[in-house]
Amino acid sequence: MSGSVFGNNITITTWGESHGKALGVVLDGFPAGMPLNEADIQVFMDRRKPGSSVVTTPRKEDDEVEILSGIFEGKTTGTPISLIVKNTSQRSGDYSEIAEYYRPGHADYGFDVKYGFRDYRGGGRSSGRETIGRVAAGAICQKLLKEIGIDVTAYTKSIGDVEADTSNIDKSVVLNTITAMPDAEADKKAVELINNCRKKGDSVGGVIECVIKGMPAGIGEPVFNKLDAMLSHAVMSIGAVKAVEIGDGIKASAAYGSQNNDSFSFDQNHNVIKKTNHSGGILGGMSDGSDIILRAHVKPTPSISSTQTTINRSGDEIEVNIKGRHDPVVVPRAVVVVECMCAFTILDLLISNMHSKMTYITDFYGNDI
Amino acid sequence: MSGSVFGNNITITTWGESHGKALGVVLDGFPAGMPLNEADIQVFMDRRKPGSSVVTTPRKEDDEVEILSGIFEGKTTGTPISLIVKNTSQRSGDYSEIAEYYRPGHADYGFDVKYGFRDYRGGGRSSGRETIGRVAAGAICQKLLKEIGIDVTAYTKSIGDVEADTSNIDKSVVLNTITAMPDAEADKKAVELINNCRKKGDSVGGVIECVIKGMPAGIGEPVFNKLDAMLSHAVMSIGAVKAVEIGDGIKASAAYGSQNNDSFSFDQNHNVIKKTNHSGGILGGMSDGSDIILRAHVKPTPSISSTQTTINRSGDEIEVNIKGRHDPVVVPRAVVVVECMCAFTILDLLISNMHSKMTYITDFYGNDI
Amino acid sequence: MSGSVFGNNITITTWGESHGKALGVVLDGFPAGMPLNEADIQVFMDRRKPGSSVVTTPRKEDDEVEILSGIFEGKTTGTPISLIVKNTSQRSGDYSEIAEYYRPGHADYGFDVKYGFRDYRGGGRSSGRETIGRVAAGAICQKLLKEIGIDVTAYTKSIGDVEADTSNIDKSVVLNTITAMPDAEADKKAVELINNCRKKGDSVGGVIECVIKGMPAGIGEPVFNKLDAMLSHAVMSIGAVKAVEIGDGIKASAAYGSQNNDSFSFDQNHNVIKKTNHSGGILGGMSDGSDIILRAHVKPTPSISSTQTTINRSGDEIEVNIKGRHDPVVVPRAVVVVECMCAFTILDLLISNMHSKMTYITDFYGNDI
Amino acid sequence: MSGSVFGNNITITTWGESHGKALGVVLDGFPAGMPLNEADIQVFMDRRKPGSSVVTTPRKEDDEVEILSGIFEGKTTGTPISLIVKNTSQRSGDYSEIAEYYRPGHADYGFDVKYGFRDYRGGGRSSGRETIGRVAAGAICQKLLKEIGIDVTAYTKSIGDVEADTSNIDKSVVLNTITAMPDAEADKKAVELINNCRKKGDSVGGVIECVIKGMPAGIGEPVFNKLDAMLSHAVMSIGAVKAVEIGDGIKASAAYGSQNNDSFSFDQNHNVIKKTNHSGGILGGMSDGSDIILRAHVKPTPSISSTQTTINRSGDEIEVNIKGRHDPVVVPRAVVVVECMCAFTILDLLISNMHSKMTYITDFYGNDI
Repeated sequence: MSGSVFGNNITITTWGESHGKALGVVLDGFPAGMPLNEADIQVFMDRRKPGSSVVTTPRKEDDEVEILSGIFEGKTTGTPISLIVKNTSQRSGDYSEIAEYYRPGHADYGFDVKYGFRDYRGGGRSSGRETIGRVAAGAICQKLLKEIGIDVTAYTKSIGDVEADTSNIDKSVVLNTITAMPDAEADKKAVELINNCRKKGDSVGGVIECVIKGMPAGIGEPVFNKLDAMLSHAVMSIGAVKAVEIGDGIKASAAYGSQNNDSFSFDQNHNVIKKTNHSGGILGGMSDGSDIILRAHVKPTPSISSTQTTINRSGDEIEVNIKGRHDPVVVPRAVVVVECMCAFTILDLLISNMHSKMTYITDFYGNDI
Repeated sequence: MSGSVFGNNITITTWGESHGKALGVVLDGFPAGMPLNEADIQVFMDRRKPGSSVVTTPRKEDDEVEILSGIFEGKTTGTPISLIVKNTSQRSGDYSEIAEYYRPGHADYGFDVKYGFRDYRGGGRSSGRETIGRVAAGAICQKLLKEIGIDVTAYTKSIGDVEADTSNIDKSVVLNTITAMPDAEADKKAVELINNCRKKGDSVGGVIECVIKGMPAGIGEPVFNKLDAMLSHAVMSIGAVKAVEIGDGIKASAAYGSQNNDSFSFDQNHNVIKKTNHSGGILGGMSDGSDIILRAHVKPTPSISSTQTTINRSGDEIEVNIKGRHDPVVVPRAVVVVECMCAFTILDLLISNMHSKMTYITDFYGNDI
Repeated sequence: MSGSVFGNNITITTWGESHGKALGVVLDGFPAGMPLNEADIQVFMDRRKPGSSVVTTPRKEDDEVEILSGIFEGKTTGTPISLIVKNTSQRSGDYSEIAEYYRPGHADYGFDVKYGFRDYRGGGRSSGRETIGRVAAGAICQKLLKEIGIDVTAYTKSIGDVEADTSNIDKSVVLNTITAMPDAEADKKAVELINNCRKKGDSVGGVIECVIKGMPAGIGEPVFNKLDAMLSHAVMSIGAVKAVEIGDGIKASAAYGSQNNDSFSFDQNHNVIKKTNHSGGILGGMSDGSDIILRAHVKPTPSISSTQTTINRSGDEIEVNIKGRHDPVVVPRAVVVVECMCAFTILDLLISNMHSKMTYITDFYGNDI
Repeated sequence: MSGSVFGNNITITTWGESHGKALGVVLDGFPAGMPLNEADIQVFMDRRKPGSSVVTTPRKEDDEVEILSGIFEGKTTGTPISLIVKNTSQRSGDYSEIAEYYRPGHADYGFDVKYGFRDYRGGGRSSGRETIGRVAAGAICQKLLKEIGIDVTAYTKSIGDVEADTSNIDKSVVLNTITAMPDAEADKKAVELINNCRKKGDSVGGVIECVIKGMPAGIGEPVFNKLDAMLSHAVMSIGAVKAVEIGDGIKASAAYGSQNNDSFSFDQNHNVIKKTNHSGGILGGMSDGSDIILRAHVKPTPSISSTQTTINRSGDEIEVNIKGRHDPVVVPRAVVVVECMCAFTILDLLISNMHSKMTYITDFYGNDI
């Protein structure tokens, strides 16, 4: 099966390896007439870029995105938008050693079994750099969502045992802390934890939370393409994510119905609201009008420099110390990836909803189109 | 978007409402030549049937599955297998009241917003009875998986705060406890908890774990159709599931890399193994040869008879007491649904893998086909 | 690959064999709120039914369609519409002989090679009865198309060398002639030709033309999902169709550009028109506002009673005389199948077009949905 | 709907406009382990390149293909193969005039209605240059097909009223004649005809035939994904194609069953053959083991320099003389496009067939994979 194409009404096709010539994405089916330039996308790209900070990989890439098609006179044309980011800082030499063995926690072994061999340079297709295309395409979706009043914001909820206060999210804090936490205090502690990990040659995981505000109710297709099912697919397809929760998530399984049910009510303008939001904005696979709340649990970076045992292709058990440029934590850089995958998924489902009623179609074609 | 079709190489299309004439599924693309009769399927259907036990809904249905197409001389023919289960025990009268208001924790409001109205009888399409088709199709997939040595077993891991001992799974225990727990002691406690819930007009959630043994490595398509992403999509599309974990799941996010990485090694026959299985059998979106481990967190049944506040279609806030036949817990009956969705997903991806290498194709067509 | 599922925004999944218990279709993704009852569908079913006339197969079936799901209070609910037609007149005995050999012009050999065996009763899945589901689903699409002013009309253009005058199409004539020709004179001649074929144990082919009036311009997705490509896929998937033409079709290949180009102009109300319609209403894969014109070329029925040579499964070359109930021509009954496949395809693409512009989305979600 | 993604097991996603920075394609799902370099692809690209000959457009492009991903150590890796061709010879100035009016026979009007505006430079996305990606991807598929003994050969059958003798196809003749005819005599006449068209400011159409040898029987999925339906979709999606025929095609509609049926028989080695091939190698939507024969009817190039009437965006009827670099015939360059679309489609369906029988799966996973 083709595994690098995603979406229904709109699709993304990503391509490229960590140490190939370039990486990119084709966004197809995106509607025409939206103003778009490279700067709109670059601001998102910069959020996933390896920073100069202590906590992320020292590899430096400009990761400059270039639009190759689909834009004319500054606007989307409705045809495929092809985006490319050239690889400029590959140092393949760093990786030659790992060609011969299977790194613990990595996809190396699976690739060899499935395909007979693998592009071992920097993880090849399973590198975190694969997410470049996801972010580039998601940035474009975010711009359209903004037009209809939908805001998708992800942030770091925890790193290791350091938990951020998420009772009040200020987007500018998220964008300015080193760890993408919405809490400057916790951020400092998390940076300390990460630095300790680096010193020990270890790594650490964390939790990313994504909140979607302004969602109309009724989005998501009952049964297999439920909003939560599609979001889970999208977010679990990000490397290193090991669990996805919606709303109260795992806590819901230990709750009583009388606790977990959210009462419907009205706000001052007699708009429908829910008094609580245990559901995380999704009931029966459709948005219920409350904020969508999703959490992705990210495992610690598998590339660590402390000694590990594994096997090589010759059939020996060996000890390895993985060298190279590695983040002791991927969470801060994965925040924008989660945000962008959610944005893409939601736009795709918003489009689906445009033909849920017969009158939507008859109104559309009854008017002068 | 068409929301009731699922899968790539093989597809299932489910249809039917809780109180319509019937429910069913069409399984398309299933390979030819497998012996199949209704009894093969019925044994799985019986596991999701409302039992006579104290813990599940008193509604009695035979839920007899009938094969309408795709079988000839006792074997699958490669053409669509259409399966139908007639609804025999509808009592629509029970549900007329809920037509006018939106039940807390249910999809009622979303349906009305999305479609303009809804089949309110027993939840219509969002009823748990929708899963009949999933189980029927999954049963067929299970039969083929068994032929290639893959066993998919799900069981109840916990209900409310009652946790089963899952250190040793005996399938016959799972099939014989009331709660589908693999632990007779815990089962008793869980039944007590459930009975207490029923008395109080309340409900409770739980956790279902699914273990897949015998998986070859390399199954799953890198990037968007990762094995974990596809399983999450499949399992999160089951109503009431609010979180999905793979392997250590949420615990991975608080772990260090040195703890979470699994070392590759060899067994006595020099087959590749992992010394631990924090990954839950999936690395980089592909199976790594260890057991696949997945957990689905199920919320408490939203239909409870104790008093709740909500709104009606006339725009009033009201108090309601939901009547009718309702399970105080859906977990035991959902176990087989999780199992069947996993079985379907895995078979679909096993098929995809058959063309991952060029030599697989040249060998196939080089031989006399 | 799943071969019995078709469509993108809306999908049809057909199932059933000629001599199984029943045949049916699931129409998924169809919008909610359209009044629908069985009579709406039955009128189309009756057009493909084996008639009592001299020209079609003497097999008598009521072919009564039953709606199993997706309708509530007389309207579509947005959930899958499951339709079933029971087989009531199977006489499997007629077919036992053909189990052992490969009928010329039939799919028997392909089925055996592909699947290892086949349901030989009446052609099994490759029987013309497979189209029952297509017509049932297409009838529903036709009802919605009518609401937005789109009329899809197919008719027999020729049978053998008897060509109908198609300069003026009166739908009531099409519905009342034995051959579905829009020309009573030609119809008589065609019936005579068909009767002669029957007497000789032979069969004959013909041409079906489909005209779609009221199409807005811009429908169809550039590149792979062009309107003409999708229609060709849909119509060529009907058994016995061996060629599809759009507009001038094969004549266009021998024409000069100066002849084949259609000049754009305006009508009295200053609406855009084309002065001619060589294009058949499609330019660059999108509708151009003129009538869509498509022709399907149908081969003669392969089942003929005159002596033919073929091979059997034991590896002998043999002479056969195929018995049983066979139409000497399938064209008249295939007319409604072509019409319904076109209707389905067009509705699917009309829905796609609803998100071709960004403003369509912002207008939709800007208004109170 | 996403209109630039095509295929099921393997997919192609094409992108790019005639006068943008580049055009390209992503081929996803292609199996690993096939040796591939740019020269393998370039040889196909050169066949669709604007030549220096009198009959094709004077625009000169090197159309050099570059592989950006999916290849490692000279072999396909199973990950997406991204191919790019830079536009080097754009002269947008030539096209500014056509921004304001709708060229007869072109997609201009449809694009404006559908998307609100269009990239008018050289036809933008509807340019023939869009086929660059199709050819690049098809070239890769051809290489794999060759390995399993399948040869796909297309050639020009006729241009205007000049018909080639196709009784004996010598591939080297096809590759060396100016018109891609397999008949040097007819080629000369066709060139003369084309030159006359050019002098008159006119254009001409033609017929492309594609023959596929070495096809195993049973390829193609019954019902909607029939081999002929998929091929028709693929070929009709090429701009300018107005009809597709399989085997006897349109002639079948005027034939009798006794003429049109092909008798099955055996060759000297007791392999199954057909004595004739009216079916064009496809019965019931599956290959029957004979050569696949398909014809695409191509309309004359709509861009002609002689005077035409049309309308402009201001609402006036005007006279136009289209300037610029235009082929008076596109047929010779479209031959390789037809060939490549057929190759892609066939490989996709060959893969599907690998799971048509249960034993294929059990054998595959029973062996050491």
